[in-house]
Amino acid sequence: MIDLYTWGTPNGRKVSIMLEAIQAEYRVTSINILNNEQFAADFLNISPNNKIPAIVDSDGPNNEPISVFESGAILIYLAEKYGKFIPSDPVKRVQMLEWLMWQMGSFGPFLGQAHHFNRFAPEEVPYAVQRYNTEAQRLWGVLDKRLSNREFIVDDLSIADFAIYPWTARFEWQKIDLTTFPHVKNWMQRMQSLAAVQKGMAIPD
Amino acid sequence: MIDLYTWGTPNGRKVSIMLEAIQAEYRVTSINILNNEQFAADFLNISPNNKIPAIVDSDGPNNEPISVFESGAILIYLAEKYGKFIPSDPVKRVQMLEWLMWQMGSFGPFLGQAHHFNRFAPEEVPYAVQRYNTEAQRLWGVLDKRLSNREFIVDDLSIADFAIYPWTARFEWQKIDLTTFPHVKNWMQRMQSLAAVQKGMAIPD
Repeated sequence: MIDLYTWGTPNGRKVSIMLEAIQAEYRVTSINILNNEQFAADFLNISPNNKIPAIVDSDGPNNEPISVFESGAILIYLAEKYGKFIPSDPVKRVQMLEWLMWQMGSFGPFLGQAHHFNRFAPEEVPYAVQRYNTEAQRLWGVLDKRLSNREFIVDDLSIADFAIYPWTARFEWQKIDLTTFPHVKNWMQRMQSLAAVQKGMAIPD
Repeated sequence: MIDLYTWGTPNGRKVSIMLEAIQAEYRVTSINILNNEQFAADFLNISPNNKIPAIVDSDGPNNEPISVFESGAILIYLAEKYGKFIPSDPVKRVQMLEWLMWQMGSFGPFLGQAHHFNRFAPEEVPYAVQRYNTEAQRLWGVLDKRLSNREFIVDDLSIADFAIYPWTARFEWQKIDLTTFPHVKNWMQRMQSLAAVQKGMAIPD
């Protein structure tokens, strides 16, 4: 049994999509970040950075429970445990790691800043709005180029797709016009047609 | 032979430290980001996100050359190829991935924003200065707690240490008082005593 501690954010949904895709037996605990539940002592033991998502797998290495924090680490842990959505070809495996890291280091954090300054900051900060919306356009362009001649990020569906998709789904918060990025738009439609994506994106309900 | 494309930034130095630590045969090509050399077409073929570092390993999988971008992916690629600085114990391997991802997703991007607004932004942006300096303090606290009872991030020296150290080395840009974070300070001294760190931090010269 896997316990998923999550909230309805792009980082949380990466993991719920993966858990649906591998058809894992799991149960959801909502960590309401609007109520600061991520700062509770119990959760801190699992997630020392006070962020969702985190998991506890009762059947970890050596048949002992293991907790995992950081969405990128959770995706690799689950992909390796179940042997799914991670390329076995060594070159494609490197490509998957490149794009997973690109999502973790750029496509997530910078789009997150665009969300903050476009929607949540209590004051107008024109310099920051400009900075992060410009970077959002650039990052979407990088992704559009990557998808211009591929069905998925590394040809076959992988955890790189699961990591990137939930961030693209919030394109409106990033002032992104989807018609400018037709290859991403088509890939998003392919992703949205997958039952695991539909179910994972609805968690927690 | 490994070609390293880099510049004197924390992300570049993660990889030069690793190359020194594994004693790889490598040569350095400086990509001067102050001259926008990261946007040259040749470099774009290796690094589609237009960022340093990137490597080309002439002896990749199947004895073919392989290029790798994103510092986190490069570290995993090299650690797995050389079988060094990556834990073999499965639980510790997960912990290494957690902290590597934490560096990639938080400790790098948010400290990078602190660098920008504290030093490089062409105008004063008080809201952003406050936002990112507050986050820097929080992240340093998370790291200090992790290091309170360990010699290295995952007990034994690993790529998680190599990923995090170069970002801590710029503590002054982050308005960090090292005496507030004694466990990180002690760990930094341990890191600085390593020849690979001394050499890697001096690249490119």
